[in-house]
Amino acid sequence: MTSSQSLDLVIVGTGPAGLTAALYAARYKLNALSIGQIDGGLMSEAHKICNFPTELSISGLDLTSKMKANALSQGAIIENGKVKDITKGENSFEVILDNKEKYFTKTILLATGTKHRQLGLKNENKFIGRGISYCATCDGMLFKNKIVAVIGGSDSALTSALYLAEIASKVYIIYRGKALRGEPAWLEKINNKKNIEIILNTNLKNLIGEEKLISVELDQPYQNQPLLNLDGIFVEIGTEPDHGDYIKNLGIELDNNNYIKVDSSQKTNIRGIWAAGDITNASNNFRQIITACAEGAIAAESINRYIQLL
Amino acid sequence: MTSSQSLDLVIVGTGPAGLTAALYAARYKLNALSIGQIDGGLMSEAHKICNFPTELSISGLDLTSKMKANALSQGAIIENGKVKDITKGENSFEVILDNKEKYFTKTILLATGTKHRQLGLKNENKFIGRGISYCATCDGMLFKNKIVAVIGGSDSALTSALYLAEIASKVYIIYRGKALRGEPAWLEKINNKKNIEIILNTNLKNLIGEEKLISVELDQPYQNQPLLNLDGIFVEIGTEPDHGDYIKNLGIELDNNNYIKVDSSQKTNIRGIWAAGDITNASNNFRQIITACAEGAIAAESINRYIQLL
Repeated sequence: MTSSQSLDLVIVGTGPAGLTAALYAARYKLNALSIGQIDGGLMSEAHKICNFPTELSISGLDLTSKMKANALSQGAIIENGKVKDITKGENSFEVILDNKEKYFTKTILLATGTKHRQLGLKNENKFIGRGISYCATCDGMLFKNKIVAVIGGSDSALTSALYLAEIASKVYIIYRGKALRGEPAWLEKINNKKNIEIILNTNLKNLIGEEKLISVELDQPYQNQPLLNLDGIFVEIGTEPDHGDYIKNLGIELDNNNYIKVDSSQKTNIRGIWAAGDITNASNNFRQIITACAEGAIAAESINRYIQLL
Repeated sequence: MTSSQSLDLVIVGTGPAGLTAALYAARYKLNALSIGQIDGGLMSEAHKICNFPTELSISGLDLTSKMKANALSQGAIIENGKVKDITKGENSFEVILDNKEKYFTKTILLATGTKHRQLGLKNENKFIGRGISYCATCDGMLFKNKIVAVIGGSDSALTSALYLAEIASKVYIIYRGKALRGEPAWLEKINNKKNIEIILNTNLKNLIGEEKLISVELDQPYQNQPLLNLDGIFVEIGTEPDHGDYIKNLGIELDNNNYIKVDSSQKTNIRGIWAAGDITNASNNFRQIITACAEGAIAAESINRYIQLL
């Protein structure tokens, strides 16, 4: 695709929302381009997905492959890249990539999803890859027969713990709440795992180590010890919207939690810009793969109607 | 499941919305029962689906099987039956089936979808199964090497015509509009089919035949003839909400087109009753399999929160 061409649509993000929008846009024969950093986005990190309606059990990578294959087979064009800036002109937008490529487009769909929330502790960044990970599926195998902790109590934390329990010798789940809050289906499996130990009402206070993480300090003693020795921690304390800097300059309206506000057609407050998937406040804030897909489809249909009437 | 038991949730309908809701409800370990007349609902009639994000091309029956298998594998209970009446008690609902079985439940999810719209012509019901069908996938094979017409111009009409063109010797598409309005992807295929002939700006006026349909009268002549001889017609002029009579008695609010009004959590105006899928005005009225699935998931999550707080 040459840069000088004016497009109907640029889709920013290649997670479930972006890929489904790309599929629908291709079927509408829109002149559309998808740009994403990682195929599947955060979905690609999930090691086991059991609540996508048509799959008994599938990895995030395999679900990503299926979605991408379908979009491509229908004619979608998908590029690997990072959108650095978007500026609004009179009747079009200019999209600038990290590699300085530029595209002009009539409409934009923002589907950049969410990113992992950090603990906010001293030395956290220093220990990334040296005992701290935000993705069990990606880094779990590095902890074979070692001791690890998952920080968090949500579905993501529980599925990460279950995955790690197959690899590590011991898995702690450290959660600030008084009870884990994931789906009962996962809780049941957690309770049946002998090498998972749950520490509730507890936060991490300090990350300890020189070259690599060797223990964590808890904000209340566990078995009379303030320190818990381990080889690694997996941080699963939720996600937050993954905005580009351009969001602010474009004047896109956000809700109180920084998610993009959209109407029932996934339109933002800025004419010509739609948003879909985890980055929005749609679907009753229930951020699932299936809802992201639906939002992508709804956005593509709305964009197609807008383009046809231009 | 015994009738005397009080349930958390009765899901009425086993299309994509109902089946996805059943999957999520099972994962929440809700005591839920799904009741539907046809597995997959109208989805089961589609002969080729290319816009479900994870499937290159799949029949409605196969997509139905996948969704049902997943819901069942997670513990969902799905019964074949027709809900005849629903009445609201003090703190629960009573659901009565055609076979007189009764269930008591704390919440209801209505996911009964849509049904085929009829032409409204004299003798239409008389000719059903004798030259009139509302489902190409179901009845197409009865018209091998015969002449048929599809009435309508939407995606459903176009995919039916494409399917029939493989079986029948000749397929007319008769549409009242001045141009077919389906997805460009389907239009392209239609234009490449030698045995499909398109008749625009035209309505059916009369259905002609004794024992069976032998021709139709058009409201304006085609190739100077007011009558078009054929062996069968497939009516694809859209769908309308498929309500049970109980909708009125329960006082459920509808929009101007008789779809059930829901809020962002898929709740209706009646406490304890949710609705999801094609029967609602959600998803910007873009009625797709993927949006129905998402609505089912959103409803189940909202219902689970409601049940946990009871």
